Amino acid sequence: MSQKVYFTNSPAIAIDRYITDSGSPKTFILTDENTAEHVLPVILSESRQLRDAEVITVKAGDVNKNIDSLSYIWNRLQNGGATRKSLLINLGGGMITDMGGFAGATFKRGINFVNMPTTLLSAVDAAVGGKTGINFNGLKNEVGAFKEADAVIISTVFFKTLPVEELKSGYAEMLKHGLIDGKDTYRRLINHNVESADWDNLLDILEESVNVKRRIVTEDPLEHGIRRALNLGHTIGHAFESHAMKHNSPIPHGYAVAWGCVTELTLSCLSLGFPSEELHRFATYIYDTYGPYTFTCDDYPELIELMHHDKKNTSSEINFTLLKDVGKIEIDCTCNEDDIKSALDIFRDLMHV
Amino acid sequence: MSQKVYFTNSPAIAIDRYITDSGSPKTFILTDENTAEHVLPVILSESRQLRDAEVITVKAGDVNKNIDSLSYIWNRLQNGGATRKSLLINLGGGMITDMGGFAGATFKRGINFVNMPTTLLSAVDAAVGGKTGINFNGLKNEVGAFKEADAVIISTVFFKTLPVEELKSGYAEMLKHGLIDGKDTYRRLINHNVESADWDNLLDILEESVNVKRRIVTEDPLEHGIRRALNLGHTIGHAFESHAMKHNSPIPHGYAVAWGCVTELTLSCLSLGFPSEELHRFATYIYDTYGPYTFTCDDYPELIELMHHDKKNTSSEINFTLLKDVGKIEIDCTCNEDDIKSALDIFRDLMHV
Repeated sequence: MSQKVYFTNSPAIAIDRYITDSGSPKTFILTDENTAEHVLPVILSESRQLRDAEVITVKAGDVNKNIDSLSYIWNRLQNGGATRKSLLINLGGGMITDMGGFAGATFKRGINFVNMPTTLLSAVDAAVGGKTGINFNGLKNEVGAFKEADAVIISTVFFKTLPVEELKSGYAEMLKHGLIDGKDTYRRLINHNVESADWDNLLDILEESVNVKRRIVTEDPLEHGIRRALNLGHTIGHAFESHAMKHNSPIPHGYAVAWGCVTELTLSCLSLGFPSEELHRFATYIYDTYGPYTFTCDDYPELIELMHHDKKNTSSEINFTLLKDVGKIEIDCTCNEDDIKSALDIFRDLMHV
Repeated sequence: MSQKVYFTNSPAIAIDRYITDSGSPKTFILTDENTAEHVLPVILSESRQLRDAEVITVKAGDVNKNIDSLSYIWNRLQNGGATRKSLLINLGGGMITDMGGFAGATFKRGINFVNMPTTLLSAVDAAVGGKTGINFNGLKNEVGAFKEADAVIISTVFFKTLPVEELKSGYAEMLKHGLIDGKDTYRRLINHNVESADWDNLLDILEESVNVKRRIVTEDPLEHGIRRALNLGHTIGHAFESHAMKHNSPIPHGYAVAWGCVTELTLSCLSLGFPSEELHRFATYIYDTYGPYTFTCDDYPELIELMHHDKKNTSSEINFTLLKDVGKIEIDCTCNEDDIKSALDIFRDLMHV
């Protein structure tokens, strides 16, 4: 794990120390309009090293993670006199760390960049692991690079003003990390209430959860094998997300992953003997925290069609990451449509739909 | 050296074998309008595996190595159904291998690509070593990535229709590789006449020359140290190139490098004791092959100003790669302006200007 990840309640001190140690002569901060208003002023007031930094602000929202915004960032770096020794700080959610990471990976063939995630979802997911990129022609993350941030500074102080829905969305990815890591990590997550304002405890379990991802990414940075473990809950989760979008009632990414995990653990029960009492406990936690996702058996063909579109699929079969038990991963599982339909039936029962 | 480089008189057989071995389900060929007319039909007629390949043609010329052409390539890959398992073949000069390499490095965060250089300059320089990129806002290679082609197929059969000026331009980079490698390689290059049509001998010495670059790149892929040896002749060469451009009489890149090598070997004599008889022998070869580059001492301030702009400079001093002798490299040499002016004086003497 060559990438430095700092977990801290004092992010301004951490970034100041990083800049001093790196000896970087010039610093740029990439942020979006929301973060520029709500988070940036706090960091700027607490930091000594960021006073002369040049701020690059782009419009918020995944729809702006595109080639126009990327060109704007390259332009600002160029006009700001950025050299190969300059530093780019990506301060924002996943949209900012994805796009800023790609800008940093490619400007002059690569300058150092640091991610400072301001949402729980980006802290646990996008900011760590080296996947950078932009959307292109309406396809998500179609263009990008594998390039790890030189450092990541993770702090729960940024999350205090987040809507609870955002916190829950990020927490779903943490739960997924617990499921693939093992019972100890998983139990601590299931016993924490994300709606409480216990930021110190959240920082501790966040560190544990991020380190699960880091261990897997170190083993397989380019996603040829075990990194696909991180795909748990996502094949069906993405299908739920697209289904909701098509029916004009979009759901947060993390909610889709939470429901996707329940359905894929059901599949794991059916095909790999995942313990059914563990499935029921997990489903209850998800139902209590996220409520149900509602659909009928008339939606099954559409959902299965959407699963076929997942970009991890290389053939006509649908590829899943499943579990034999908590922490016991099986990548590259293929399931037939009958099993998937049974899992969707059981999911609806578990969600009291 | 993990990158496969094939030196062959039968490039169609080499690419067919590569495609069969790689098992890639879909192939795209990137080329420019000139290459599409003069080289592509020959390859297509001789290859079995390229019959169903999708051809992406962009406008020729370095001015088109830009974000618009890059977006067009991403677009064509997307619309052509390219997946992570697809293969992109870059068939052309340095403009095509640079831009196609960057497209390949970034489409879906990286697909396999193969370079088939059709000019001597791109064979010996751009196609090997992993520097990919595009120009941006008028600055050369401002945006890009370090990513080696999965394979490079080098064949002198492509060069038979090149103008002799193009051949000589590429040969200058080969001479540079000889100078930094050692006396054996260097002697063989100095004893070859690039204006002869001895394609088999050219393929042999080209292989030797390309392998010099590969050894250096393997040692220092990201140009933190010894890779700067490849910069020999380029600090002053780039200044000559920009100077000629500004005065509306552009010179080929390789010619600028050849003259830059003479001047930097002169500097090497002055500051590191490079043998003066070796300098004179080299200068005679360059004069006989490339003729002189003409300027007066009134141009010195402008030339020195241009040397300051070289992107390898990190401070106000001018950074050179010099030689103590053929094959004895000293990177990160700084010279004062008096030495540079003396070297320019001696260069003009050696070129009978």
